Amino acid sequence: MSDIEIAQANEQREMKPITEIGAMVGLTAAELEPYGRSKAKLTLAAMKRLRQQPLGKLVLVTSINPTPAGEGKSTVTIGLGDALRLRDQNAVIALREPSLGPVMGMKGGATGGGYSQVVPMEDINLHFTGDMHALTTAVDTLAALIDNHLQQGNALNLDPRRIQWRRVLDINDRALRHVTIGLGGPTAGVPRETEFDITVASELMAILCLADSLGDLKRRIAKIVIGYTYDRKPVTVADLGVTGAIAMLLKDAVKPNLVQTLAHTPALIHGGPFANIAHGCNSILATRAALELGDIALTEAGFGADLGAEKFMDIAAPALGKTPDAVVIVATVRALKYNGGQKLADLKTEDLTALQTGFVNLQRHIRNMKRYGVPVIVGINQFTEDTEAELKLLVDLCKQEGTTAVPADVWGQGGQGGLALADALLAALKQPARFTPLYDNTAAVKDKIATIVTKIYGGAHVEYDRKAELALRTIAKNGWADLPICMAKTQYSFSDDPKALGAPSGFTISVRDIVPRLGAGFLVVMTGTVLTMPGLPKAPAALNMDVSDDGVISGLF
Amino acid sequence: MSDIEIAQANEQREMKPITEIGAMVGLTAAELEPYGRSKAKLTLAAMKRLRQQPLGKLVLVTSINPTPAGEGKSTVTIGLGDALRLRDQNAVIALREPSLGPVMGMKGGATGGGYSQVVPMEDINLHFTGDMHALTTAVDTLAALIDNHLQQGNALNLDPRRIQWRRVLDINDRALRHVTIGLGGPTAGVPRETEFDITVASELMAILCLADSLGDLKRRIAKIVIGYTYDRKPVTVADLGVTGAIAMLLKDAVKPNLVQTLAHTPALIHGGPFANIAHGCNSILATRAALELGDIALTEAGFGADLGAEKFMDIAAPALGKTPDAVVIVATVRALKYNGGQKLADLKTEDLTALQTGFVNLQRHIRNMKRYGVPVIVGINQFTEDTEAELKLLVDLCKQEGTTAVPADVWGQGGQGGLALADALLAALKQPARFTPLYDNTAAVKDKIATIVTKIYGGAHVEYDRKAELALRTIAKNGWADLPICMAKTQYSFSDDPKALGAPSGFTISVRDIVPRLGAGFLVVMTGTVLTMPGLPKAPAALNMDVSDDGVISGLF
Repeated sequence: MSDIEIAQANEQREMKPITEIGAMVGLTAAELEPYGRSKAKLTLAAMKRLRQQPLGKLVLVTSINPTPAGEGKSTVTIGLGDALRLRDQNAVIALREPSLGPVMGMKGGATGGGYSQVVPMEDINLHFTGDMHALTTAVDTLAALIDNHLQQGNALNLDPRRIQWRRVLDINDRALRHVTIGLGGPTAGVPRETEFDITVASELMAILCLADSLGDLKRRIAKIVIGYTYDRKPVTVADLGVTGAIAMLLKDAVKPNLVQTLAHTPALIHGGPFANIAHGCNSILATRAALELGDIALTEAGFGADLGAEKFMDIAAPALGKTPDAVVIVATVRALKYNGGQKLADLKTEDLTALQTGFVNLQRHIRNMKRYGVPVIVGINQFTEDTEAELKLLVDLCKQEGTTAVPADVWGQGGQGGLALADALLAALKQPARFTPLYDNTAAVKDKIATIVTKIYGGAHVEYDRKAELALRTIAKNGWADLPICMAKTQYSFSDDPKALGAPSGFTISVRDIVPRLGAGFLVVMTGTVLTMPGLPKAPAALNMDVSDDGVISGLF
Repeated sequence: MSDIEIAQANEQREMKPITEIGAMVGLTAAELEPYGRSKAKLTLAAMKRLRQQPLGKLVLVTSINPTPAGEGKSTVTIGLGDALRLRDQNAVIALREPSLGPVMGMKGGATGGGYSQVVPMEDINLHFTGDMHALTTAVDTLAALIDNHLQQGNALNLDPRRIQWRRVLDINDRALRHVTIGLGGPTAGVPRETEFDITVASELMAILCLADSLGDLKRRIAKIVIGYTYDRKPVTVADLGVTGAIAMLLKDAVKPNLVQTLAHTPALIHGGPFANIAHGCNSILATRAALELGDIALTEAGFGADLGAEKFMDIAAPALGKTPDAVVIVATVRALKYNGGQKLADLKTEDLTALQTGFVNLQRHIRNMKRYGVPVIVGINQFTEDTEAELKLLVDLCKQEGTTAVPADVWGQGGQGGLALADALLAALKQPARFTPLYDNTAAVKDKIATIVTKIYGGAHVEYDRKAELALRTIAKNGWADLPICMAKTQYSFSDDPKALGAPSGFTISVRDIVPRLGAGFLVVMTGTVLTMPGLPKAPAALNMDVSDDGVISGLF
């Protein structure tokens, strides 16, 4: 059965009213704003009340570098949540919201898979509770207000060539990567070049996910640098006078969404910034609510641990005010064999040599995570084709690193398939966590970047293009140097070369540009080519999708 | 008190759970999908069950040509619904959804005013239940799929210069009126010129509002002409193979939304196509549901009766399968005086001459509506400054036309202020309605246009630009001539000159182009300059908007 078939069969038979799921973790019906019968937003009042609650333990789920073989990080997070509930633990899951663009492009959802899914998966993968659309609208309304300002006399003296704020759509639309707008004469705007990003790449998504309240969201929006004047002074949303309007458009989007897994574990699905250009973690409001509602909160960070987990530790955790009590690194035999040189088509064949060779990728992620002073375990997301020998080798290799690794068949068996992993996690949570941040924000920008490159990526040098050097001067001049670093790097490798698998070392990272994101509160360091607007493939997944006259969807995963 | 203050005071004190509102008209809780506590969508199952219900009486609310003085058509529709309920009539209201673009631009909502409002007005005016966002996403996903088709080899031989499908945003963004996309080299799309419209101007909005089921929606989407091949053959969504995906994105948007007035009258708010470029009426699914749930269904048509009501009669009613039992034309003393030459700044001063002169505008609308064989009354939306003498003169002038006119202070008094108008409407509904369509769809395209121009607009001639003549050939060649006509004309005048107020005659209408909309099922006849992407004013309403830390909105109207 496909993921959607499993989900639909179970949704119809077994989904509980969302008020029941809320009640499991002490939320009253009045504290939930229903969106249909199986989705709800937490009210602002509920969020306020929960601030009095003690916080549970925080588990960060991350993974090796992604490969075409698939890792299944969300699937493991969900399965682990269900397994913990089977062990009578009050576990609550916090995950990112899917972006619709990739859904229409490539088959493969962001709601887990098999018997470890969050439901209703169709709704979550499509419009859900409208957060993504509210963000798109807010981003594009701000853009329209900026271009209108140019049109109506440009009192702020904005340089149209130096406008930083870009429009977005939650669609993979490569034809919008580079556009000219404002054509058609004096009544149709000021002509200028610009670019569209996908919604999840916008600073506003990062802001939504780092804000700790509606008030904080507003304060962050006010600080967004929308561009520069002709004499290079930064211009903010506050200068434009539309902070309130943009925040107003996000008054509901700021509230975390509650759904359930197929096994009825409560799951908060909220926010989903890109893990390359932004920090790649669900909203801290959702993670915080999970910590307040559950004794164990499971959250995941995007892409591999070099990108998502590093940013969780150094950007999200300080905003959250809580550091992880344990880290689970998800790996698969397949992906490690791919890292070790086995071809994609051959991955179903046993290859212990490739596994041993590719293990270096996992090894470096384990060592990196341990550097933060937090207990680390490895969750092996099991595939049918994995052989006994391969699984044993992988467990042994981890053991040599002093790390517990446990296979889990959560795709095929749901929580039952993750009981051993859950037990390992519970043991890890009994170990002490002594969190140490990677760098100090007051260090020089180049030093902070060098720390990430040498200590996390295993690189040797960092070189800066002229544009990056100029950006550093702007950052210094405006007093923005004390912000944390958000690396924009390929997710496929520790280096900035997506083809360098395994654990490359001695390489140089090239920094093309450094973009200050004052609202999000970080400096985006651009390395290599990072696409902020994906394209559709030759045969988009959309070609297979359909809806019956009775509203039943097919072909979605 | 401002509209939002009245609404907020009443919402908090008095809004009923939406399930109670549903119960008033026989909808069970299971037939409603809640969106928060005071909004819900009707389920597809509910819509199916209602098909067995007898239909109530249909009242179409329309108006004179809009002026800067304001007419208050929605306010009267809402107040009339409340008044009918006070007269123990089972009245149900069907209205269009507001577009967010104008909300951010110009103060003034689409949810009525004063004590005749639908609530929660903030939500309805902002993201509501996400219909507008779903439409935007569906339109732009189709556009991305079209450009991706060009990028991936263009198997359909689409001529990039003749692509008809445009992207949309629900934002007033004039800088997107004329753009070039696909710049940036071979990996970033095929360069071409295109335009963005506001969402409500898209054919997909018209389709949503004319479809009588999810199945019909799909059939209409399949027929959309997205462009032409190099050898001028039409290419449809079905040819592109993405009908199912686009329909899937609208699976929830197709369901009518239930809310309430301040006096708890059930109101279905669903769909909102432009009344110039499209047909300007809420969805026929909402109107049909109102007819099935109520004994009297009140719906409104956009702009003046020359545009909105004509299209309701000749485009929407056939799709609905039901013609109006009565028509209410909304007029104001102020707007008629403005039509009669009084200056905007002087409208608070009594001017019987200007009123008598300007009455010709209302007179022609009355005669036009009577032509359809339906009882017609006039609802005078009363303003504080209207004098006794002015109101009496207007009532008398209508009487000379054989038409009952009744002042109504629904803004200030809600339903209580509309009781006399409600009584007049009930009397009109006892008169026989013998509907006669204006034209026969099988007539020649030019004859159908001439009929509208001479019989409704009072014009003398129609002239066709070369582009329009070429379009007529394309229409003939492809066998599309039997579709009804959707005139795209300025709303401010019977003519195509927005400055020609009153009741101009003898004029010539210039047809620039004729655009076949096969999915909507009409031919759009472009006259004068009709903007499909509005701009923001010098001081946008957004500047005054705010949201408190507790989520309370201010400055929205």
